This record gives sequence, structure tokens and C-alpha cells, in this order.
Amino acid sequence: MSYERANIESMAGYVPGEQPTSTGVIKLNTNENPYPASSQVAAALARIQVEELRRYPSPTAQQFRETAARYHQVSSDNILPTNGGDELLRLAITTFAGPGDVVGIAEPGYSLYPVLTEVQDCRLLPVPLLDNWSLPSNFVAILNDAGARLALLVNPHAPTGMLLSAQQLIEIASSFHGVLVVDEAYVDFVDPDQQYDLTSAIKEHDNLLILRTLSKGYSLAGLRFGYGIGAKELLAPMMFKTRDSYNTDYISQQLACAAIDAVDDARESWQKVRSERARLTKELDQLGLPSLPSQTNFILTQCPNADSAREIYHGLKESGILVRYFDQDRLQDKLRITVGTPEQNQRLLQSLKLLVS
Amino acid sequence: MSYERANIESMAGYVPGEQPTSTGVIKLNTNENPYPASSQVAAALARIQVEELRRYPSPTAQQFRETAARYHQVSSDNILPTNGGDELLRLAITTFAGPGDVVGIAEPGYSLYPVLTEVQDCRLLPVPLLDNWSLPSNFVAILNDAGARLALLVNPHAPTGMLLSAQQLIEIASSFHGVLVVDEAYVDFVDPDQQYDLTSAIKEHDNLLILRTLSKGYSLAGLRFGYGIGAKELLAPMMFKTRDSYNTDYISQQLACAAIDAVDDARESWQKVRSERARLTKELDQLGLPSLPSQTNFILTQCPNADSAREIYHGLKESGILVRYFDQDRLQDKLRITVGTPEQNQRLLQSLKLLVS
Repeated sequence: MSYERANIESMAGYVPGEQPTSTGVIKLNTNENPYPASSQVAAALARIQVEELRRYPSPTAQQFRETAARYHQVSSDNILPTNGGDELLRLAITTFAGPGDVVGIAEPGYSLYPVLTEVQDCRLLPVPLLDNWSLPSNFVAILNDAGARLALLVNPHAPTGMLLSAQQLIEIASSFHGVLVVDEAYVDFVDPDQQYDLTSAIKEHDNLLILRTLSKGYSLAGLRFGYGIGAKELLAPMMFKTRDSYNTDYISQQLACAAIDAVDDARESWQKVRSERARLTKELDQLGLPSLPSQTNFILTQCPNADSAREIYHGLKESGILVRYFDQDRLQDKLRITVGTPEQNQRLLQSLKLLVS
Repeated sequence: MSYERANIESMAGYVPGEQPTSTGVIKLNTNENPYPASSQVAAALARIQVEELRRYPSPTAQQFRETAARYHQVSSDNILPTNGGDELLRLAITTFAGPGDVVGIAEPGYSLYPVLTEVQDCRLLPVPLLDNWSLPSNFVAILNDAGARLALLVNPHAPTGMLLSAQQLIEIASSFHGVLVVDEAYVDFVDPDQQYDLTSAIKEHDNLLILRTLSKGYSLAGLRFGYGIGAKELLAPMMFKTRDSYNTDYISQQLACAAIDAVDDARESWQKVRSERARLTKELDQLGLPSLPSQTNFILTQCPNADSAREIYHGLKESGILVRYFDQDRLQDKLRITVGTPEQNQRLLQSLKLLVS
């Protein structure tokens, strides 16, 4: 017999991007940083002795809180370390939205959000993005009218790569009656010219929860380390009640501190990605595969139609290049391609040339 | 204003045992193994390159599943790797018990269980242990009459250290209508003479979920790695729906595999702990601090009364020795003391002699 709760039994789980075990594959499907983490992270890893793992880690990852607080110019009480950004999303839902409560999202968005709301048995309120992929002007009114307790937005947006301004998000936080989670998984790749900064807004907005991760910007997807930034009172119930008591491990705490301390090394990788992003966007365009201006480390490319998108996806896979295809409304004729190294991007473009000609 | 759900707002969080930063303290308060992990785990750690962290880890920790399956002589489908044993407890509640559903526990038990049920807004059904700390004979009837969806038992028991037989647990699983979680966090310290084995029972009992952790037996509390053992169908919804998509990190997967492969090294530490447990039990008894026969790596010592228990706790702390005191019904006159190295135990006994004389 089945022992699952009814809402769990009826749902489908999240399907992560493929993780090939073969090392020959060019992996442009899960938005990993193509450059390795700082040598200072490697040095921190080399310093760890197995004897240090005998004891429980700091339950709050206090040293990381202080390190991240210095970087963001906030207090350590404004930092909540988590086992990847995914844990922060789950904690926000667990803490702020109960079964039957409304959770608002923009659609399309990160496909994990609906899965997490189903686990919690919340009522999902998907608000479709406009044709130009911007939020409808009555977004907050829709949320408030439905009594939404929580809203989840990814910025820069996935899978389009587009950036909402901090001002627009601050206006949403100001008028929204629930908690606004802004998932900044890709924020490190935003062009500095955009002068995007939402972090300082947590001082004025006690319902604003910002998600950061070391997976992309710091080349540490394998480490599972993310964190939330928000008002002390907003973070407190997640920090002291709903979080698993030792949610981050000793090694990841040490490496995460080293990564933030060596942010200048990570910045070099961000700049290289931005530069390749510009080149790749232009070259794709010349191949008849136009895309929106991306502020992330991926590009959402428009194919002639859904059939050709699927064909290109499979054709690339056969030549050892993985990209992401979403078989869902409005995305069926597009491909999401992670920006790789110049060599990887060159291989991609060569394969694409053969497939689209 | 507060944005928490009502059940979260009204609850108190779990309070982990103290984790002193000073290295001079003798830490006998959180049941860590006093001996370090195998040199093979150290070798696995030394082999890891930071470049390997750039990519996402195996979402299912497949290599660990296969390693643990060989050790337990089950299929890899019977293994669910988790971010510490705590995650498995949370997943079991999330998956099998909804808000308002009844979750049965024995009282006293691991103090995290009530916290996790409160987060999920379940109805907790605490069944008091008898005066001799055994389960009442109508335990399952109480659970079934209340319609319990889930029951959580720790075996060997915390904080008494006593062991239920596998046969007794199999009888509970047979007649209980919900899912039975048996938390075997301390099972590695059970005397082999007891011939305790519950793992083989998962083949016959599709509602039996066994929790294992590398925190105690494998000296890897800092790593956060545990796993569930159960029928494939029982694990599937946790594996594919309720679990965070990448719940265990790359490094911990590698080290956990190495630890299980080097189980013979861990076994040596278990035997040393058992031997010291016997000596410590006897010496405590001679100091007028009797205890129950423990099958774990800790001893629950009976003090003359609650005042003396608190005095001894504080007295030990002043002399640099941490033990655990539970300010709750039936435990107020007792202390839970982790078995340390012979040298640590000697220091403990010397301090106790001064405090009880």
C-alpha cells in the first residue's frame, strides 16, 4: 500500500538537468560556472583535517554569517546560511505559507517553485509574464487580492535572463502584504553598469528575502551552499525553528567563507562570462537564433519553431553538447544555453552551424 | 509585523547541545565518537580537487547508494542518502504526515521529534515509557486507535541507552497501520552479542524506515551525512518528490563512501567505546551514580536528586567538562554523559569524585 499524503502522491517531482558521468561532454545545461573556484578555496580545502569532522559543525555557520555580512555591509543577523539556495526556498515556504495558503509566482520561472509549493500543499498562483516577458503592472494587486502569503521571483529571470530593476522590486515589496523572495541565483553575472543593488533595501523592507548561492558565481555547485539576506526578524523563525538543526556542514562552511573572502577571483570569472555572453549572443543571432539580452550566465535562444528546437537539442546531444530544453508553454521553441568557456562556446557554435544550415 | 505561520510563531525551536569553540573543553555532551574517522576517509578528502565542485553533485548520491547497499546486503533502491539523519526525519514527516495528522513517539525520546512535528503542524501523540523505560504493551493499539500515520522510535533509545529487540520492532511494524521510523543513530555501538539486526526486515515490512547516520559511528558529525533504509516504494516519494533536489554535496558523498568502505576501521572505535562504556558504568556506580545498561556511546546516570544533577552539571562545566542535562519530566535528576577516550573518562571521574564527595 502507499503511505504518502494525498498531495504528495498526486504530484510529480522536480527533474534536475542531466549530470553526465562522461567527462568528454560539454555541459551547457545546468548553468554552472565554466571556471573553477578561487585558489584560496582550494587552499581552504587542503587545510581541512578529517579529525575536524568528528564534532558537529557550528549549527548557525556563524563564521560564514560574519563573512557574508562584511561583504554585503549588513549585520550577521541578516544572513541565513543554507544547504544550497534550494533549502532557503523550502524554508521560506515552510515558514510563511501553510497548506492552502496562496503562493504567487511569475510564469514561466524556476520550475522548482511549483514543486515546493505542492510539497507544502499550498495553492499556487502563477501570474503569466507579458509577451515581452515583463511583469504585468497589476502583479501586486493580483497577489494581494488572492491573499498571497508569499511570492517567489527570480531576478535576473530564469529562463529568459532578463533583469528587473531593484526599484521595481522595492515597489513590489512595499505594496505586497506577504513575504517577497527574490532569488538572485544569477545576480553575480549582472553587468556592473546596471548598478543593480537590492541588498540595501532589506533595512527598509521587513518582508524582503533575498536568496544568494555559491553554486553559480563562485563555481561551487557541488558544495551546496547558499544563503538568505533579510531583516533579522524575518530570518529568525527559519534560523531557530524550521531549519534542520545542523543544516550546513563543516567543510562547506570553511570553503564558503574562503570563497566570499576571495570574491575578487570570482569576479574575474564573472567578467569572462559576460564577455563570452555578448559574443555568443551575437553569433547565435547571426545563425538565425536570436535571444533576449541576458544578465545571467545563460542565454535563452529562439529557434524557428518547437520541432526545430527539439531537433537542435537532440542534435547537440549527439555531438556531445548538452543544453536545456523545456517542454512547456512558451518555451517549446527555445533552448537555454549556459555560457561556457570560449573553447566550449566555439564547439557549440560549430555544431549549431551544421544543425541549422 | 510577523509573517510566520501561526504554528511556527507559537512553537519553540530545537536547542542543540553546546558547541564550545575552546579546544581545551572535554566534550561529553553531544555523543560524538571520541576517535577520528578512518585514514581512508582522510585519503578521500585529500584526493578532492576544487575543480570537481564546479558541477552539481549526483542528485541521488548514486555511488553512496551502491556502497551502502553492498554493506547492508540490500538493493541501492533501498538506500536514501540525506543531509544528516535529521533530514530523513523531516522528510518522513513531510511525506507521510500532513497537518493535523497524528505522529506517535515514545516519551522521553530524541527532543527533535516534537519540534519537527510542530513545524509540520501535526498532532503529537507522546506515549510515556513505563517505569522501567520499556514500551507499554499496548503501544501499537494506542497509535492505531488514534489513527497515527507515522511513529518515531529511537533504538537503541536516547537518552536511556536501552535496546529494544529487532523482534519487538518487527511486531510493531507488523501491526501498526502507519509508517514506523526506527532511528538507529547509535546502533553501531550495540554489543555484537545482542545479534541485533533490523535491516533484513525491510524486505517483509513496507512500512519500516530505518535511519542511519555517519555522525556517531563513523566520527563524521561535521559532515552531515545520514541515510534511510526501507522498501523501494516507501523511499521513492522522498527520493523523487519531497527531498531538496541536490540534498547531499559532492565532498560528503565521496567521504561517506570511503567511510562505509573502511567500516573495519570504524568498528575498532566502536569496540573501544564499548569497552570504556563498561568501565565507566562500573566506576560511576561506585561513585553512587548508577545507570541503566547502555547499548549506545552515552550513559544516563542517576543522580541523588534534581538539585544534585544540576550541581554536578555546573560543577563539571566549571572544570571544563560538558555533559548534557535535560530539564524535563523524569530526566531532571539524571545526566547524559558521552563515553570519551580513556583519558577523558578519567578526567571526568576525577572531577565527579570531588563533586559527589
